[in-house]
Amino acid sequence: MTHLPDNKNPLLQLGENARAAAAELSQAKTALKNKALALMSDGLRENKARILAANKKDMARAQDNGMPPAQMDRLMLNAERIDAIAESLATIIKLEDPVGKLLQSVMRPNGLKIEKVAVPIGVIGMIFESRPNVAVDAAALCMKSGNACILRGGSESWDSVAALVEVIRDALNKAKLSPDIVQIVPSPDRALVGAMLTLDSHIDLIVPRGGRSLVERVRTESRIAVLSHLEGICHTYIDAKADPVKAVSVTLNAKMRRPSICGATECLLLHKEIATTIGANVMFELLKAGCEVRVPAELMPLSPGFKQVAQHDYGYEFLAPIIAVAVVDDTKQAVEFINRYGSGHTDAILTEDKHAAEYFLTRVNSAIALHNASTQFADGGEFGMGCEMGIATGKLHARGPVGLEQLTTYQYRVYGDGQTRA
Amino acid sequence: MTHLPDNKNPLLQLGENARAAAAELSQAKTALKNKALALMSDGLRENKARILAANKKDMARAQDNGMPPAQMDRLMLNAERIDAIAESLATIIKLEDPVGKLLQSVMRPNGLKIEKVAVPIGVIGMIFESRPNVAVDAAALCMKSGNACILRGGSESWDSVAALVEVIRDALNKAKLSPDIVQIVPSPDRALVGAMLTLDSHIDLIVPRGGRSLVERVRTESRIAVLSHLEGICHTYIDAKADPVKAVSVTLNAKMRRPSICGATECLLLHKEIATTIGANVMFELLKAGCEVRVPAELMPLSPGFKQVAQHDYGYEFLAPIIAVAVVDDTKQAVEFINRYGSGHTDAILTEDKHAAEYFLTRVNSAIALHNASTQFADGGEFGMGCEMGIATGKLHARGPVGLEQLTTYQYRVYGDGQTRA
Repeated sequence: MTHLPDNKNPLLQLGENARAAAAELSQAKTALKNKALALMSDGLRENKARILAANKKDMARAQDNGMPPAQMDRLMLNAERIDAIAESLATIIKLEDPVGKLLQSVMRPNGLKIEKVAVPIGVIGMIFESRPNVAVDAAALCMKSGNACILRGGSESWDSVAALVEVIRDALNKAKLSPDIVQIVPSPDRALVGAMLTLDSHIDLIVPRGGRSLVERVRTESRIAVLSHLEGICHTYIDAKADPVKAVSVTLNAKMRRPSICGATECLLLHKEIATTIGANVMFELLKAGCEVRVPAELMPLSPGFKQVAQHDYGYEFLAPIIAVAVVDDTKQAVEFINRYGSGHTDAILTEDKHAAEYFLTRVNSAIALHNASTQFADGGEFGMGCEMGIATGKLHARGPVGLEQLTTYQYRVYGDGQTRA
Repeated sequence: MTHLPDNKNPLLQLGENARAAAAELSQAKTALKNKALALMSDGLRENKARILAANKKDMARAQDNGMPPAQMDRLMLNAERIDAIAESLATIIKLEDPVGKLLQSVMRPNGLKIEKVAVPIGVIGMIFESRPNVAVDAAALCMKSGNACILRGGSESWDSVAALVEVIRDALNKAKLSPDIVQIVPSPDRALVGAMLTLDSHIDLIVPRGGRSLVERVRTESRIAVLSHLEGICHTYIDAKADPVKAVSVTLNAKMRRPSICGATECLLLHKEIATTIGANVMFELLKAGCEVRVPAELMPLSPGFKQVAQHDYGYEFLAPIIAVAVVDDTKQAVEFINRYGSGHTDAILTEDKHAAEYFLTRVNSAIALHNASTQFADGGEFGMGCEMGIATGKLHARGPVGLEQLTTYQYRVYGDGQTRA
């Protein structure tokens, strides 16, 4: 709360507003926060016309700028999509409020009662690209977990995000909460991203969500702690004892369901004993599904459709229907490969051997380690968190999907009766 | 685990050793880790002569350099102190092993079982000054929580720390664990501190423990996440409904028990209704105990022994028998004062009014908030954590004392049976 008069940060006023709103919100009851979420949900449905008009402006600008169709589709809103956003708020209403949860309680021999209680972090800065619904997810998760947020969407979705945030602020007002719980930076000027990243007196945590260059910039420039992932270099390892049917269905899903998301498998590891049997079958199915399959020289004879893998294909995030394949001697070597080339995001073992699975899951350095399931499950919604701010691959504070609980910290509250220390 | 051939960091080999040792240690059973701790404890008792000889060298150097007596006392080891260090290891043996603890378990509608499990962070870098026993505390806490550590003690305690670490590594060897679980940097060359802080490929967390200039340097230069406190600007607030007897005993303890520690109260806040009654009495007792009492102009007439407080005395860490006093209108103003001038470390309210206490504890932005107890309880040992790596005032990952649990992170382990994402 320190007021530094020499602070020339252009976002200082937003920061002050956010701090004040966060202090008020930290004391809000769950019922009030849920009421605000319900009002947001209603507001989105009632203001479809206004939101769609704003989205039309973004879409027109995108067209003029020659945005590729896939990206245009991510930007586009329609009545159904707005309903889906409103629906996701209903999911967040049902989630347990993490604030005030008693995490631990200890009675010390001297009679001091020490309680460890979950509290909001304070003010969250969210920097994101492309899909406008991220603004609503982020605002709702921050609010329910007792945090104010400052949002900076991509310039391409500027009007859509502004319209959505206007609806959210109206709902906060109606709920008699401060609208400054959710604020957006005043313009898409890139210098304001820098201003956010250096406002460490007023922002406690930055969550960037977008492409590699955005996350890289945020990590380099930020004076504030960052929760993020730079890349999702996910592996699926097919063990000697894998079930042949599951191997095909899970690997195809892990690679091809949506090749462009961070939980998509980029590298397939094959136990040497099944490389030309179960492994070959999986690779043939990948080829049929339209995936480019890059294999080591020894596997090239299996199909004229294969391409030869290069060393730099390992540890590379294709975000496309391309997969790199490597053959390993055993589960140990698979783990070593993943811990060397992976990004600590999500990695899977497919096997019917429980010991191999346990070996893999306890040794792989990944936020999410899966047994017999698709790496594309790396998602807050799939984890039961409603939605997510993003996925974190660092080791501190939070790993994997960042949901309500990950947006809290804790405080020790100590109850005494005049105790002094000896 | 990525090996970058162009990495010229002089601590690269230590980092590689630490990574390998950490991977092995992460799988060690609690009984084995406790056996190693017992062997360390025995080793310290058995090697007193060797440790004391090393300490003598440090003491002689300190004398030559004209080190002040208080600091010399902190550096000095004797038979009793070594016994106390050995004893503190016995405490850590009794603490619950945090590794592998099931933090959450969810069964999803699709049959996926998602377990959130506590795992070690990996490699911890500890940079500390002065008291050599910190090396043993840090090594033991890191080891029991499954982490390898790289230690860099102060140049003044170099020989003592080296002797202690030799004993620890011998004990690890005897337990058939890798001695590289605990390593020290090869020389007190200050450039090696910089090398530690930039070895982000091999060190996951830095914990600095020492004076402000050390912590400031670490925070500025580190490319690695840091858990620390820069200062402990602790407040004791005496409310209108405070018990007069507790007010004296608790405040005197909070300020004068050891004025130089981070949990010492630096500022006394008095509710205006008791400033000249209970408050005056507390201040007179502080004067009698040899404390310099700096008060606002309105309180100056109460005693010729008082000095007048200056604005810059608020938010200042004296680390000495000096206290700044301010008068506030109510608990709300006390909280605002603390959130403005405090350092998020430890703050206390003294009152018999439960509502005032609850108001204070839930609104003050401090890692540790106390009701009717001395701020000097801010200590891992007093919290039942055995000992501590330090105290953290940031909001992410860990707040307050950093003990075993705070040296872990978590991993999601997902158990499926061939699930694919829709």
